[in-house]
Amino acid sequence: MTADLDNLRVVLVAARNPLNIGAAARAMSNFGVRRLRVVNPYDVAFREARSAVGASSLLAEAEEYKDVADAVEDCRLVVGTTAATRRELQHRLLRLDAGAREIKQQIKTGPVALLFGSERYGLLNDELSHCHWVMRIPTREGHASMNLGQAVAVSLYELVRSQKAAAKVVPGKKEPTPPTVGEMERLTQVTLQVLRASGYVKPRVIAAEEKLRRFVRRMKLNANDAEVWLGMLRQIAWKLGANEKSDK
Amino acid sequence: MTADLDNLRVVLVAARNPLNIGAAARAMSNFGVRRLRVVNPYDVAFREARSAVGASSLLAEAEEYKDVADAVEDCRLVVGTTAATRRELQHRLLRLDAGAREIKQQIKTGPVALLFGSERYGLLNDELSHCHWVMRIPTREGHASMNLGQAVAVSLYELVRSQKAAAKVVPGKKEPTPPTVGEMERLTQVTLQVLRASGYVKPRVIAAEEKLRRFVRRMKLNANDAEVWLGMLRQIAWKLGANEKSDK
Repeated sequence: MTADLDNLRVVLVAARNPLNIGAAARAMSNFGVRRLRVVNPYDVAFREARSAVGASSLLAEAEEYKDVADAVEDCRLVVGTTAATRRELQHRLLRLDAGAREIKQQIKTGPVALLFGSERYGLLNDELSHCHWVMRIPTREGHASMNLGQAVAVSLYELVRSQKAAAKVVPGKKEPTPPTVGEMERLTQVTLQVLRASGYVKPRVIAAEEKLRRFVRRMKLNANDAEVWLGMLRQIAWKLGANEKSDK
Repeated sequence: MTADLDNLRVVLVAARNPLNIGAAARAMSNFGVRRLRVVNPYDVAFREARSAVGASSLLAEAEEYKDVADAVEDCRLVVGTTAATRRELQHRLLRLDAGAREIKQQIKTGPVALLFGSERYGLLNDELSHCHWVMRIPTREGHASMNLGQAVAVSLYELVRSQKAAAKVVPGKKEPTPPTVGEMERLTQVTLQVLRASGYVKPRVIAAEEKLRRFVRRMKLNANDAEVWLGMLRQIAWKLGANEKSDK
């Protein structure tokens, strides 16, 4: 169990309240999850949370990232959490219990990121575009939005709770290894270049990039196939005279 | 369901922190539980929680009691929560999921009280003595004690979770329609053209076509995405000066 949970990264995106960051860390510690990543936190909040009395080593070892892409680069599955408003209808939406079952399968094979958005806005469209799918805690419609620390606690509880149920899965059926997020993102970027070079996408259309990012993640490529695709697309890009951006 | 949950009383015993009282109330509202009772709260904390910005009607309607006996007088079942130290060994101890199952049976027939102790000490022996049995959230031994608001959230989630398990499907989650075989084949052929035009695949290599066909089918595209892909690839083929074979 511990080995599996070691593959889970809890990613707090743009958290604003030090008490919430501390509460998230505490819930992680309660449920044996150790890897905390914070993306673009409100600086004062993060420093306060870190220096709070009783702040855990978990918080001290939290890694800080500038954006979501960086924070999830090494992960094979990226799951967003949402109170399920309009925004995420472009994604596959699972209830927490069903989502937790999938996550438990994936953390056996590689790193999985679980994203929580800011207290005020949740995950924004651009942030969601890095997710393979999203899940929601079954709160009531009239008051769906949960406190950040409580949402983390409930999500991790569900993951730990049914750990036994996950162990029941018949051995022998091997799931293919999914590509890392970094590979997916490279695939997204090279595809974007090719589409721009071919005139399919107009340069500087930001929405196209988000759309394409979701599109690529919906494909369910395995790691080998993703590499093959990438090779194909690079060749096409080269033929079209498109230059790969060196920073991607 | 709502009728059942109406029989549940969340009882906070000797809570000291207004933020925790507020957080407990918020979690209750999230999960559709309305009856909050507070026993001997630190007076300032309770007043602060009540007057906090965004404090719910739930908090305004919370009932205040001098001791546990008064607070649970009308209940048919009283359940304590604990981080499971020595104290409660005199009680039957259930894990949260098993406990929740019993509670759900009982709230069909009459009021049930769920007790949470103070942030610092949990439920004291005298307070526990009013409980029929106790339950614990399966936290790890090294850090068992949860934040009060988070413990309330996780407990209520477990109660609501299995209640809703019957209605499994999240609205909006539809299984995607797969593309037809014809669409897959068109996708395969256009991809092949593009790969030949770009020099990735040498003309007349038959194995390449078979490989590519399997490759395209492994992708698990839905029908819409397959159409989008086809559009992209046709544009790329056009840009590369490849001609689509008319017989495919």
